[in-house]
Amino acid sequence: MRYDVAIVGTGPAGLEAAITLKIRKKNTILIGKKDSSAKVKSAEKIDNYLGIPAVSGEELAEKMLDHASSMGVEITEGRVTMIYPYGEYFAIQCGEEIIESTSVILCTGVAPAKTLPGENEYLGRGVSYCATCDAAMYKEKKAVVISYSPDYEEEAVFLRKYASEVIYIPMYKEAVPALEGITLSGEKPAEIKGALKANTLVTDKGEIKTDGIFVLRDQISASSLVPGLETEGSAVKCDRKMATSIPGLFVAGDIAGEPYQLIKAAGEGLTAALSAVKYLNGLK
Amino acid sequence: MRYDVAIVGTGPAGLEAAITLKIRKKNTILIGKKDSSAKVKSAEKIDNYLGIPAVSGEELAEKMLDHASSMGVEITEGRVTMIYPYGEYFAIQCGEEIIESTSVILCTGVAPAKTLPGENEYLGRGVSYCATCDAAMYKEKKAVVISYSPDYEEEAVFLRKYASEVIYIPMYKEAVPALEGITLSGEKPAEIKGALKANTLVTDKGEIKTDGIFVLRDQISASSLVPGLETEGSAVKCDRKMATSIPGLFVAGDIAGEPYQLIKAAGEGLTAALSAVKYLNGLK
Repeated sequence: MRYDVAIVGTGPAGLEAAITLKIRKKNTILIGKKDSSAKVKSAEKIDNYLGIPAVSGEELAEKMLDHASSMGVEITEGRVTMIYPYGEYFAIQCGEEIIESTSVILCTGVAPAKTLPGENEYLGRGVSYCATCDAAMYKEKKAVVISYSPDYEEEAVFLRKYASEVIYIPMYKEAVPALEGITLSGEKPAEIKGALKANTLVTDKGEIKTDGIFVLRDQISASSLVPGLETEGSAVKCDRKMATSIPGLFVAGDIAGEPYQLIKAAGEGLTAALSAVKYLNGLK
Repeated sequence: MRYDVAIVGTGPAGLEAAITLKIRKKNTILIGKKDSSAKVKSAEKIDNYLGIPAVSGEELAEKMLDHASSMGVEITEGRVTMIYPYGEYFAIQCGEEIIESTSVILCTGVAPAKTLPGENEYLGRGVSYCATCDAAMYKEKKAVVISYSPDYEEEAVFLRKYASEVIYIPMYKEAVPALEGITLSGEKPAEIKGALKANTLVTDKGEIKTDGIFVLRDQISASSLVPGLETEGSAVKCDRKMATSIPGLFVAGDIAGEPYQLIKAAGEGLTAALSAVKYLNGLK
């Protein structure tokens, strides 16, 4: 099955886009976290979301999710690690699954400013963003996992079912529990090196030879997520209709640039959704 | 006194801009109708304002006004008929008053597509958008009033205190009560003609010779409102930061182009407000 629109991200931009496409009766998939955006929920008090004064991020996220759900919007829990623009449609790597959609709205938040030296260069050639997807290729091999959140400990455990050796480098402060068969490392990654494929992680302490490196972050930079997508600093380049350099691909919210504010994100979600509708109608 | 920011229009874009500037502690004046936008209030049911599901326009307008008022935002009731960009500041004609402001955010809604032939050409030379402002120049003279709303019947009466003859042409369906000393006309305006100044209204029935013509509409086209402002169709040309072709002048909401939707307008109000703050900081 091919969707009309795939929305990636469940913050205010993604939820507003989903509502708008529901009203327009488009066949839509909304992919992200079921409990909306961690960034929204972490806000203590929000004063500038017109119509809902003095609200906590937690409450506002709930109001948004309730609104979407009251209109029949469903969230497909998942993490998108790659989007391939094939012209006629997009192939979206979500966990182990490939989802097809005629158009895409990216609402994944602001992308991290920094990647490791060598990370972009070797992406897909020994560097991967998804252990669940690529684990099977690591039978009897060695892998290093650079993880930015405790959420990914499980992915490392899954990877170890295939790989003969897994070195886990936590980039967060929380204590890491014992992970069976996995070596914990306190070294700090500095660079990824290799030849045709990545084969070495350079750290502050030396070098780790490996068959592959997994970099696991909540947010993937837009240019890594979609090959060939034009960016401007940390934002995706887009016009007033939220169209990007790739036909059929739209953005909304923080990924489209400052200001990083909820109501601006929601407004852009609506605009991006209507632009996607126009794009779909133009294909007929 | 000179304001930091003058916001024109009290729909969602104007209210959101006012809230944002209140938080930023800028010296702001918000000019428009005290009861928000007629367009918002006329909506029967709104489903796509994220966080506030299934709401009537009336209720949503009230929520927005309550939010603004809870933060200390005040509305200055008035109708802006001309904005002069003087470089260092803007002079804003509001009724008989001139208001000075370092920057301006226009949130006046979508401008009417059509003006009368000759209207733009003779604006300021025998054509006026404000009877209250220009009445005094019509002592012992004759004036024609083309009115698009019953709200302007009062302006015609005021004008008649100066002008020796006033012909009132209602462009609306509501019945017009007897207006003392004013001649009601059922002719349909077709064109404004003149020499150095406008002196003739051509109608479907013939020609009316006059010393001046007042065209009274709720919304004035952006290019008539601000001399020299670049437009694109019925929208004001602007970038992703809501900046227009005139430094210090920003737009938000329907005046900035489609989609004509509340949450898009509110989001742009926020962006325009922060752009105005940046502009003001850059002047220091």
